[in-house]
Amino acid sequence: MPTTPAPRPDDDTPLRPRHDSSDAVRIAASAATTDGAKLSTADFPGWFDSRRQAHRFRVERIPFAELDGWSFAPDTGNLVHRSGRFFSVEGLQVTTGEDPHPRWHQPIIKQPEVGILGILVKEFDGVLHFLMQAKMEPGNRNLLQLSPTVQATRSNYTKVHQGADVKYIEYFVEPGRGRVVADVLQSEHGSWFFHKSNRNMIVEAVGDVPLHDDFCWLTLGQIGELLLRDNVVNMDSRTVLACAPFPRDEAGALHTDVEVASWFTAERSRHDVHAERVPLASLPGWKQTAYTVEHEQGRYFDVVAVRVEAGSREVSGWTQPLFEPRGVGVTAFLTRTIGGVRHVLVHARVEGGFLDTVELGPTVQYTPDNWDHLTGADRPPFLDLVLSAAPERVHYEAVHSEEGGRFLNAESRYLLVDVDEEQAPLDAPAGYRWVTPGQLGDLVRHGHYLNVQARTLLACLNATAVRG
Amino acid sequence: MPTTPAPRPDDDTPLRPRHDSSDAVRIAASAATTDGAKLSTADFPGWFDSRRQAHRFRVERIPFAELDGWSFAPDTGNLVHRSGRFFSVEGLQVTTGEDPHPRWHQPIIKQPEVGILGILVKEFDGVLHFLMQAKMEPGNRNLLQLSPTVQATRSNYTKVHQGADVKYIEYFVEPGRGRVVADVLQSEHGSWFFHKSNRNMIVEAVGDVPLHDDFCWLTLGQIGELLLRDNVVNMDSRTVLACAPFPRDEAGALHTDVEVASWFTAERSRHDVHAERVPLASLPGWKQTAYTVEHEQGRYFDVVAVRVEAGSREVSGWTQPLFEPRGVGVTAFLTRTIGGVRHVLVHARVEGGFLDTVELGPTVQYTPDNWDHLTGADRPPFLDLVLSAAPERVHYEAVHSEEGGRFLNAESRYLLVDVDEEQAPLDAPAGYRWVTPGQLGDLVRHGHYLNVQARTLLACLNATAVRG
Repeated sequence: MPTTPAPRPDDDTPLRPRHDSSDAVRIAASAATTDGAKLSTADFPGWFDSRRQAHRFRVERIPFAELDGWSFAPDTGNLVHRSGRFFSVEGLQVTTGEDPHPRWHQPIIKQPEVGILGILVKEFDGVLHFLMQAKMEPGNRNLLQLSPTVQATRSNYTKVHQGADVKYIEYFVEPGRGRVVADVLQSEHGSWFFHKSNRNMIVEAVGDVPLHDDFCWLTLGQIGELLLRDNVVNMDSRTVLACAPFPRDEAGALHTDVEVASWFTAERSRHDVHAERVPLASLPGWKQTAYTVEHEQGRYFDVVAVRVEAGSREVSGWTQPLFEPRGVGVTAFLTRTIGGVRHVLVHARVEGGFLDTVELGPTVQYTPDNWDHLTGADRPPFLDLVLSAAPERVHYEAVHSEEGGRFLNAESRYLLVDVDEEQAPLDAPAGYRWVTPGQLGDLVRHGHYLNVQARTLLACLNATAVRG
Repeated sequence: MPTTPAPRPDDDTPLRPRHDSSDAVRIAASAATTDGAKLSTADFPGWFDSRRQAHRFRVERIPFAELDGWSFAPDTGNLVHRSGRFFSVEGLQVTTGEDPHPRWHQPIIKQPEVGILGILVKEFDGVLHFLMQAKMEPGNRNLLQLSPTVQATRSNYTKVHQGADVKYIEYFVEPGRGRVVADVLQSEHGSWFFHKSNRNMIVEAVGDVPLHDDFCWLTLGQIGELLLRDNVVNMDSRTVLACAPFPRDEAGALHTDVEVASWFTAERSRHDVHAERVPLASLPGWKQTAYTVEHEQGRYFDVVAVRVEAGSREVSGWTQPLFEPRGVGVTAFLTRTIGGVRHVLVHARVEGGFLDTVELGPTVQYTPDNWDHLTGADRPPFLDLVLSAAPERVHYEAVHSEEGGRFLNAESRYLLVDVDEEQAPLDAPAGYRWVTPGQLGDLVRHGHYLNVQARTLLACLNATAVRG
């Protein structure tokens, strides 16, 4: 039985402040610094091209029959790896009872393990720099994009690949190697992944950091410049950057935080979403060919297979399935300046693969080709407003790719579009609410509030906020 | 095509502060007020007895065969209602790969709909009062306990019961009837429910509120007094009270908020929990009798059936299944005063029915009878420390019931126990961390951080904090 020594009602252990706003201030200072101490903005394109030259990399479509280690399971028709690891492509039946799609079936990626997306940061010349990697991914149209320092599935860093170690992973998994700036589990694409989330981390390194090939230190201002270009900053970088603490100078908001929380809770409660994994074989509305699993009307996306040859990946070559969307997406926040403070119109979106019913997405998140056959009130809300926006109303626009390790040529045009009362009233329709970037910044410190597309736009908002 | 009128870069819509700390101040003032404007503390026992007298209420155990509308489904053996609604009892297979229970099977309650647990508040004599209900529930040993104003499943308020309306529900579902003080989806018991959550709401009424039989207005100080007594304040009340904003005067904490978040994210990531619903029929390790589904070693809980006769419920009588735990639970926070600030030791707990792997639970949450056969290092951490705590170290202790609508005689002794460095070091073992009530108060504004037992203890901490 434990002894019970005399009570020690107090002790002299020093307490620490719960919050340290200096991180946000230093990140804002980095965002305001548009040239780097290590790699100048002018030299970036040359460095990036040199990385592209340094690696041979070729991706070709193959029939499923040529996949190595992957096959359709005899009982379910699910596309699985013989190791039982990596991921599988299965079927999903989603029932919402809501128009226009009360029930649907779709292929979905099942990858239960939690990966790490991590950016290492460190001060040079008194300014925080972010360690970014020029990384080849088979699904990117231009193959090479700028990724976080570490982008590792658990299979990766426990070496299921039987390939090379993940560089810098020790800063994210070993105590004492760094100081955590942000660390939160965030959802991946709910339309393509079943209950997938990744750990989004920003860690400030303790001590000197060796610089490996394919890596470079950039200020957040430099990364902000790159976010204005098409297909440079990859999805994993964007979602991690969205989680960075960022100081806000907002005089208030249209709705209090409690009102926003209550609206979100009501949205999550009122949707009655049942998502059930079903066999991929004979999935209603979908058909299988030698090269694809595809929708019978040619909509949404195809499941395809590719062969990859590369020199700079953990292993030198492999084959794998990818999801290939049909058409380029349009992903936009409508924005309004209300009482002098910018607001964005968020949408409580149902996606079949979300862990919990809805997350907050952009105002518009659609692939227009999928909706061409609809007219009038059946058109997705606000889509035509974004498609027809006058150029002077568009204050951010770039094409970005979704995760190139799972998705092939999955591009979306990301926009921030200013609107007025007539186009999008302050009294927003059901399922939509005006919130400030500061409110989103507080929510994104917790998982399952902002979907991955909203996080990309939040990263862009942060970058453009500094620019003014 | 929408028109694009001239941009209106700003407008004169008044902004509101995002946070209003006055709610927390008013709630603290109510907690410090130990007598009520409407029902004096001295008169409460008499009033409560009168409510008990006013209602005949009888609960008797019956064999499953006497359940009305409930039966074991022929294909799965699941215990289901003929309407397909309310809830069902199914099997669950949980795989964690962790000692001492890498895999187990158990019955579980499946009730996918989100209910509302809501307390209406209103100022009388300048002090917030909480509208509480004397409510009969079949699983409570003493039958009558103090519930929130509204405790409604969706079936309840959409009238699947074909019974009476839920009183005061309009304040929680109709716009303009009240002002939201708190509104968050919180998990229910992860060991007994599969992915169940309820909306926890506190709403301040606009305008006069009629007072119905069985309801009374109490200050939070009065409720705090009742929390010191056994089996008065029901579980639904306790979880809602835990969500009330509460002012904290903490000089700091042992760990910063980011460190706590990072630790929690790591805990959620490192556990690899797979919970799969399986048929209740032939569930390994469980056997079925005429009156019970029970564990072969007589551990954990039984599934049983009861007949209820009551005058004050929505309907006058019914039969239903309940879960009946074996033995009384022990649920405790170890506490230490660190640098002058109280801290509690939270435990990142795996429960098979959680939506996402782990939530933060009390330091100790066990039914000792289930662990009697284990000795030494196999004993649950800190359990014996709590069981043997000297009386002067126990600064809170009361027996409370879990939800009496689903659980029969499910009682736990809830404790706050002061310890020292020798008993529980500041450098806590893996899976445990010292945090402040203020840190818990910030986390509980979001769902799926604190389990329902930790929320009961947080409500007790708030009540005892005011008492000093």
